[in-house]
Amino acid sequence: MASSVIPKTVNPDIQKERDGASFSSEEFAAWWSGGQDALKFHRELRDYMQKDVDADEYLQIQNLSHEEISDFAVRTSLEAAKKLRRLQEERNPGGEDYWPNLYDHKITWGVTPAGNPFGVMYVMLIQALEAQCTPEQYEEFGKRMKNFEICGTYAQTELGHGTFLRGLETRADFDPKTDEFVLNTPKISSYKFWPGGLGHSSNYCLVMAQLYINNQCKGPHMFFVQVRDEETHEPLPGVHIGDIGKKMGFIGINNGFLGLKDVRIPRTRMLMRHAQVKPDGSYVSSPANVLTYFAMVRSRCVITYNNSSMLAVAATIATRYSAVRRQSPIEPKAPEPQILDHVTQQMKLFPEIATSLAHRVASDYLWKLYEMTIEDIEYGKYERLPELHSLSCALKVTCSSDTTAGIERLRLACGGHGYLISSNLSNLYVLATAACTYEGENTVLLLQIGRFLMKSWNSALSGAPLAPTVSYLAEVQQNPEFGAWTGTWDNMVRAMKYAAANKTRLAFNSLSNRISKGESEGNAANQTGIEFTHAAELHGRAFVFSSFTTEVTGPNAKDRSPALNRVLENLLELYLVKETLNQLSNLLRFINLTDKDLTSLQERLETVLTKLRPDAVAIVDGFDFSDLQLNSTLGSYDGNAYERIFDAALKNPMNQKPVPKSFHEILKPFMKSNI
Amino acid sequence: MASSVIPKTVNPDIQKERDGASFSSEEFAAWWSGGQDALKFHRELRDYMQKDVDADEYLQIQNLSHEEISDFAVRTSLEAAKKLRRLQEERNPGGEDYWPNLYDHKITWGVTPAGNPFGVMYVMLIQALEAQCTPEQYEEFGKRMKNFEICGTYAQTELGHGTFLRGLETRADFDPKTDEFVLNTPKISSYKFWPGGLGHSSNYCLVMAQLYINNQCKGPHMFFVQVRDEETHEPLPGVHIGDIGKKMGFIGINNGFLGLKDVRIPRTRMLMRHAQVKPDGSYVSSPANVLTYFAMVRSRCVITYNNSSMLAVAATIATRYSAVRRQSPIEPKAPEPQILDHVTQQMKLFPEIATSLAHRVASDYLWKLYEMTIEDIEYGKYERLPELHSLSCALKVTCSSDTTAGIERLRLACGGHGYLISSNLSNLYVLATAACTYEGENTVLLLQIGRFLMKSWNSALSGAPLAPTVSYLAEVQQNPEFGAWTGTWDNMVRAMKYAAANKTRLAFNSLSNRISKGESEGNAANQTGIEFTHAAELHGRAFVFSSFTTEVTGPNAKDRSPALNRVLENLLELYLVKETLNQLSNLLRFINLTDKDLTSLQERLETVLTKLRPDAVAIVDGFDFSDLQLNSTLGSYDGNAYERIFDAALKNPMNQKPVPKSFHEILKPFMKSNI
Repeated sequence: MASSVIPKTVNPDIQKERDGASFSSEEFAAWWSGGQDALKFHRELRDYMQKDVDADEYLQIQNLSHEEISDFAVRTSLEAAKKLRRLQEERNPGGEDYWPNLYDHKITWGVTPAGNPFGVMYVMLIQALEAQCTPEQYEEFGKRMKNFEICGTYAQTELGHGTFLRGLETRADFDPKTDEFVLNTPKISSYKFWPGGLGHSSNYCLVMAQLYINNQCKGPHMFFVQVRDEETHEPLPGVHIGDIGKKMGFIGINNGFLGLKDVRIPRTRMLMRHAQVKPDGSYVSSPANVLTYFAMVRSRCVITYNNSSMLAVAATIATRYSAVRRQSPIEPKAPEPQILDHVTQQMKLFPEIATSLAHRVASDYLWKLYEMTIEDIEYGKYERLPELHSLSCALKVTCSSDTTAGIERLRLACGGHGYLISSNLSNLYVLATAACTYEGENTVLLLQIGRFLMKSWNSALSGAPLAPTVSYLAEVQQNPEFGAWTGTWDNMVRAMKYAAANKTRLAFNSLSNRISKGESEGNAANQTGIEFTHAAELHGRAFVFSSFTTEVTGPNAKDRSPALNRVLENLLELYLVKETLNQLSNLLRFINLTDKDLTSLQERLETVLTKLRPDAVAIVDGFDFSDLQLNSTLGSYDGNAYERIFDAALKNPMNQKPVPKSFHEILKPFMKSNI
Repeated sequence: MASSVIPKTVNPDIQKERDGASFSSEEFAAWWSGGQDALKFHRELRDYMQKDVDADEYLQIQNLSHEEISDFAVRTSLEAAKKLRRLQEERNPGGEDYWPNLYDHKITWGVTPAGNPFGVMYVMLIQALEAQCTPEQYEEFGKRMKNFEICGTYAQTELGHGTFLRGLETRADFDPKTDEFVLNTPKISSYKFWPGGLGHSSNYCLVMAQLYINNQCKGPHMFFVQVRDEETHEPLPGVHIGDIGKKMGFIGINNGFLGLKDVRIPRTRMLMRHAQVKPDGSYVSSPANVLTYFAMVRSRCVITYNNSSMLAVAATIATRYSAVRRQSPIEPKAPEPQILDHVTQQMKLFPEIATSLAHRVASDYLWKLYEMTIEDIEYGKYERLPELHSLSCALKVTCSSDTTAGIERLRLACGGHGYLISSNLSNLYVLATAACTYEGENTVLLLQIGRFLMKSWNSALSGAPLAPTVSYLAEVQQNPEFGAWTGTWDNMVRAMKYAAANKTRLAFNSLSNRISKGESEGNAANQTGIEFTHAAELHGRAFVFSSFTTEVTGPNAKDRSPALNRVLENLLELYLVKETLNQLSNLLRFINLTDKDLTSLQERLETVLTKLRPDAVAIVDGFDFSDLQLNSTLGSYDGNAYERIFDAALKNPMNQKPVPKSFHEILKPFMKSNI
């Protein structure tokens, strides 16, 4: 596989784009990465991690069988782990700044293209152990997990239950005679199903189960359960464990199933930092129930960050490809232009670039809130939790759904070649869309946010104080007139909040009407569900509007050059205008926009696309993804898309012999026969 | 793999649905299939084709390697062909009513789950040979292809060129000395790329190439080229051929690449029914240029039909699953309901059922127009071609994009389990979305339709007559006031046409403004591209609105029972209301809808969802897909979803041994080591 048809030169069409940009991609990259030092650190680390990787192999993995892909994923993930351990030894022995703290998606991305079967272990399990173990428990088994002496996952979802935790069927019965819990999954629907790495890469498991004491249910709690022998990896007695089969994405992470039959664990294997069961069977409940689900809150923060990055990756691939592909003359006799010159193509690309930025900025805000909340919890303060919960849900929904739709638009913008596995766009899509479902299915979350909005609206009606992120509801109640549409950015932010508040009002009225007509609260809420989700969606969008506008026009602007600020302003303008147009039916219902206003919005859209055109390639360069992170024949930095597509095709296993076996065995006899 | 955890009984939750339906699924099925006889014939044939198939194997194919899947596809496709040949022998020897006429997607679907590598051969190539060969040519090689003595594909798209045919780079130079054409693909970008079955399942190819006579280009023409030896299947001299690598979907059909270097074919291998090259090099052009592209027109008709069916398949899977999954109580203390009872779930399912019907009905109309046009062409009449072309483009776009989005919503409606390959929803998605790109990329088609609308608007301004499908433009010009919104179905159809006409007007004005300001026509059209696509999209939707309304409320209703008509009316109501709400921003711009009107639309939406709730399972039963056609663990007729998911998981190759090789080789050493 050594030979290659890929030239060593950069495609002149893409070079021309870089030469003509109005700002520095390097300055953009530093801003995007959180500063010059962070960028430098990230690049160094990335180079170190990506050294010696066989990029050709990475482009071909989806040609392998499910089993081979699974082995590939274990191998590459452990290679990444080894590299980080080695780096730790070299740079700060005994510390944790490289290994294991950097062993998550952000760093290993690009070197684990089939996914990391130990991802859930580091993103969720270890976090949960740190948060929920007593110090003794952490010393006993938490540390072993963090050091990777054992391996495991976080097992919550069941075949019959996902989002509705109270419905989980796995049970842990306390047996005071032996001071043990007895775990059971009584039916097929109770089997744990889906946890990443559960199939073949876990010997321990954090099992979410209904705690029973004297046959009385105390609700879901976490139990640390050994599932395989540490030496032989054979499943332990009473444990039925395996791989759930191939999924759309995460093809290498052996998501698994787990059945438990009378599996006994010591009482001290229930995580007891908050809730506790004493040897006599007495139960001490947790000071804050939500703590049990805190691992999910963090995951939602991770999702928001990761999904905005995936959209940026897809935008990089599609934008670079659009700079080198030439198709369909604009003037009848003219040569074919770069497809980046077609306005309809710009309309597919640039809004996604803007959206990825908007979500990244919102995600930064969310992370800050998360860090503050963690600090509060250390001091026993739980007040921020509801707001963090609600905002993490709202952004998880908006970001996962926008990213998914955006990646798909970008893939379609690459025409047929976007459909090739080697474009990597389909893989990005399946990763992004999974986030619409896991860690709280989006509609379920929207309904939760909807209920939160109903409560908040009701509180505001009675003059009670509201959390900062919903204070706009009270403002609209006090001042129900929007006033003039001026079309400034601030006016547009206010318009989105105004629409969100009015959608909340309409849903609240529908709900109240139904209840006043004698419907039960549950039925009334169900019947009003569609309106709940609409209000909740706008609530999330209003937050993204507001945080993106603040970042671009607020005090941070003075740390950036005027050239970079102009580009960010163009992206903000595009984001606000296109989202306003997307949400037009909601806005038109409550705000008086004249035909002239609407024409002006369409003109602003077209104008800002034209302004962004010369900077598009430089902007995606500023996202600073390496070719290996992109893992795409279409999006490489050198712009040699056709050659790379062709090269990957030549190297696929089907082309290593001229005639497939099946020709002589099946096809030829068929063509020669008469029946 | 013989043992199974699947019960032989029907899930009581789904049985209850069937017992409670207000109409007969059988009557629905007969209507949907085009009559009782057609239904009976289709079922008989399906049973015959599906006999002896290993359904377990079908659920596991995506676990195989790319090469194994490719072999599987060749094998199953030829088994299907053999069965049809046998049937032909039995029932009507020497005829063509079974073999080869039924060898296309509609019939083999369900028995070729990895795709049919000979699909393009039957859907496009043979059609093209029949339409474009002289009688002598058809006798010489067309018949051999139809009899499957040789195999081939239709090679048009190149690595560097898709939709813009005039840009194709493959050339066929006429050499009068030898009475031959010399074919060449001069650059990497000129390689044929993408044709289905080209990689390893073709020994002949219909190559679209620029015809050159004396170095003068005569535009794209079709050439019948041998690419592999009939006996050995080895590529012929000058032919570089192979598989392009894995794609998102069509995983078994070995899409291929083809490079040609000085490949010579006799002059008589250019298809010459229309355009001709004489031995002296004189050229006779085709009477209608569009004939060259006629194979693509038929493909668009096929796509519209197939995609509406795919949406119906996905709706069947998701609706049945929603009847058997129980989750999240509606009343706090109540048991968990079937998720079909959640209104937000109904909102994910029922609109897609309605959309699949709407597109199917529109597709039937399109097929009728196609048949009429074919008949006309036989008599040398080409007048219908532009309208057929435009309508086939519009419906291909609407149907492929709505189907794609709809399948994805349905998949997401199945939560995590929808993400399993064994749900088959992801496979449906990738098949559906491909149709957004092939046979004319959707945006390119929308721009073409947009230009057609501009011309039509201009013609109407000067009082010229318009084709029937755009006559509404003239009506709106003559009567620019919409009048009162009444919300009747006819009023809603008229509203959609009115919005389409006004979007056309706005785009026309923008275009004219730009030209009057001195922009060239090409630049002006490019700048107005976004508005073109909006107008074109609404144009397509208005047609679907109109044809669906006519089918349900028109004369055909009298052939159906009142019970069935009530169900179809509910589906029409849902379709019109939800699409009106989807297009609200376009409608609100031109039509005065009061707040009361909007509230009423929302209420109608909720009301009709409630009306459809008890009939949902019976409706999808009426689509009459067999379990093998669904190929889904979630959607089987018996409703035993969990058991089937679990059974498929147990049977996946990863679970055939308890400990994977990689544990001892990689994972254990890693955990035992300190670095």
